[in-house]
Amino acid sequence: MNESSKIAIIGGGSWATAIAKILRENVQGINWYMRNPDTISQFKQLSHNPRYITGAEFDIDKINFSDNIDEVVSNSDVIIFAIPSAFLKNALKKLTVSLEDKFIVSAIKGIVPDENMIIGDFFHKIYQVPTDSIGVISGPCHAEEVAMERLSYLTISCQDSEKASFLADKLECSYIMTTISDDIYGTEYAAVLKNVFAIAAGICHGLRYGDNFQSVLISNAIQEIKRFVDTVHPITRDIKSSAYLGDLLVTCYSQFSRNRTFGTMVGKGYSVKTAQLEMHMIAEGYYAVKCIKEINEKYNVHMPITMAVYNILYEKIAPSIEIKLLTEDLR
Amino acid sequence: MNESSKIAIIGGGSWATAIAKILRENVQGINWYMRNPDTISQFKQLSHNPRYITGAEFDIDKINFSDNIDEVVSNSDVIIFAIPSAFLKNALKKLTVSLEDKFIVSAIKGIVPDENMIIGDFFHKIYQVPTDSIGVISGPCHAEEVAMERLSYLTISCQDSEKASFLADKLECSYIMTTISDDIYGTEYAAVLKNVFAIAAGICHGLRYGDNFQSVLISNAIQEIKRFVDTVHPITRDIKSSAYLGDLLVTCYSQFSRNRTFGTMVGKGYSVKTAQLEMHMIAEGYYAVKCIKEINEKYNVHMPITMAVYNILYEKIAPSIEIKLLTEDLR
Repeated sequence: MNESSKIAIIGGGSWATAIAKILRENVQGINWYMRNPDTISQFKQLSHNPRYITGAEFDIDKINFSDNIDEVVSNSDVIIFAIPSAFLKNALKKLTVSLEDKFIVSAIKGIVPDENMIIGDFFHKIYQVPTDSIGVISGPCHAEEVAMERLSYLTISCQDSEKASFLADKLECSYIMTTISDDIYGTEYAAVLKNVFAIAAGICHGLRYGDNFQSVLISNAIQEIKRFVDTVHPITRDIKSSAYLGDLLVTCYSQFSRNRTFGTMVGKGYSVKTAQLEMHMIAEGYYAVKCIKEINEKYNVHMPITMAVYNILYEKIAPSIEIKLLTEDLR
Repeated sequence: MNESSKIAIIGGGSWATAIAKILRENVQGINWYMRNPDTISQFKQLSHNPRYITGAEFDIDKINFSDNIDEVVSNSDVIIFAIPSAFLKNALKKLTVSLEDKFIVSAIKGIVPDENMIIGDFFHKIYQVPTDSIGVISGPCHAEEVAMERLSYLTISCQDSEKASFLADKLECSYIMTTISDDIYGTEYAAVLKNVFAIAAGICHGLRYGDNFQSVLISNAIQEIKRFVDTVHPITRDIKSSAYLGDLLVTCYSQFSRNRTFGTMVGKGYSVKTAQLEMHMIAEGYYAVKCIKEINEKYNVHMPITMAVYNILYEKIAPSIEIKLLTEDLR
């Protein structure tokens, strides 16, 4: 990585736009892939994303937009993926050039459907990207607050600390502080699990459990995250760091979290399907809990909250019964 | 401790009343000291506390009220102190009987003014209570939710596990789950520190820092608690347990926390004095931060958040400047 290294963003959603907004403070130009050519032409016309973080003006001359993923990847050294995990495989179908010599960065919080792999693992195993060329951008960082330029902290993980530092440098600005880490597996799993726990927090809220209980639930959730990531990828890490605990807190306590809202509806008695229809979208934790449950069949980590969410969403156990059972398991 | 052991409550506020409400599920009778004889007669007349948790009806025949602390202590084996720490020394002035052979339980979250001691330490050093006869009741547990019988978890700490179990048994009921611990120092210090961090959360909120930042602040706060209690009393403990992390979360995220409200006013530009006048009370964290700062002069633990709150409240440094400096120290 050096000053002439080119950075690409894959995706046109709010988090992709937030990252582009941050990068524009530090880099001369970026390559930006969006699937939809109409979005690109509207973006060019308006000088901002037509749908997300619309208040952020971009200097259009400094962005090479393209709806051709091959072109964007070929012209870039660092590729930041910021699309929902459910669409990742589809987006990559059109890719014919190699990713092996690129620095591949996941800004996705999810698991690749059908594969039961976190994003980094997927790029390593399926696209032969070396593990020390895989990076992860972790919060706690709601895109909405990046839009408002409210101070936020990002953790940039890569086993190659020079690469992590390179990207951290590019993402640090007046409203973003960065830390680097070598824990690409732990930060990704924690980011996935937090959505499951936000659903749990929502379910309990929907069932009218109070604030005292929520704080016990979340204390147990961070313990569950630690047990899981320490088993799956046993390295030294402080689970109380922002990338793990902070990310969990901002998601579980946020009124805007889709996962929490989905959970609240389920706790109030909506069926999973009705809740999904009402929300016009599917909360990522819904997929994540199934994947984590399946991955954990190999590890057998004690994950009572994850299992309670799984049983409610997939086994149709009544939330009130399942959470009552869970309360016996919390401390 | 056995089934004929008599339990006393010292104090007539909301937390004292919440504990009495819980105990009435499990014990035949309690001794209850209140300073004010008028409150006692009103309580007897109404069958509930005239000012706090008024919805909880008590069987008056099962309570021995008294405004004579000697009488209450003499007739009891377990003495639960649930008065504000600022009033403790005054309440004890009238005491002439010994506490040495009693099980002394602190349900106070604070530090004894002028002494810079947590409650357990104070009873041990000044009243010669053996350390294994000192207990602590920790949350996360707002009295308001006990009033509503919303499921809450209490941690009962005592170095003598039989005593801890005895009290835990008496406090467990349909809406209270209990855990025991041997960490009387760590749970008390954590309960004191959480009020300081709730002030910090309020100040940052008042300064319009967002949710992303709050979650980073609180992640750093639990690290600061761990550094401090591990230094002051180095035993094995999981700081992610409810009694430490959960208690911090419920206080920092609660809209009802007096400490957070006080901090918000200070962050918005009220002077400390004006904020205290407006609130008609003084937030406990205001005293706590000065005590902790002084105690820490001996230990030199790195406590950037505590110091920022101290500098704002006592050294009159502008909140915006002090918190800006703090942001450089967080990760």
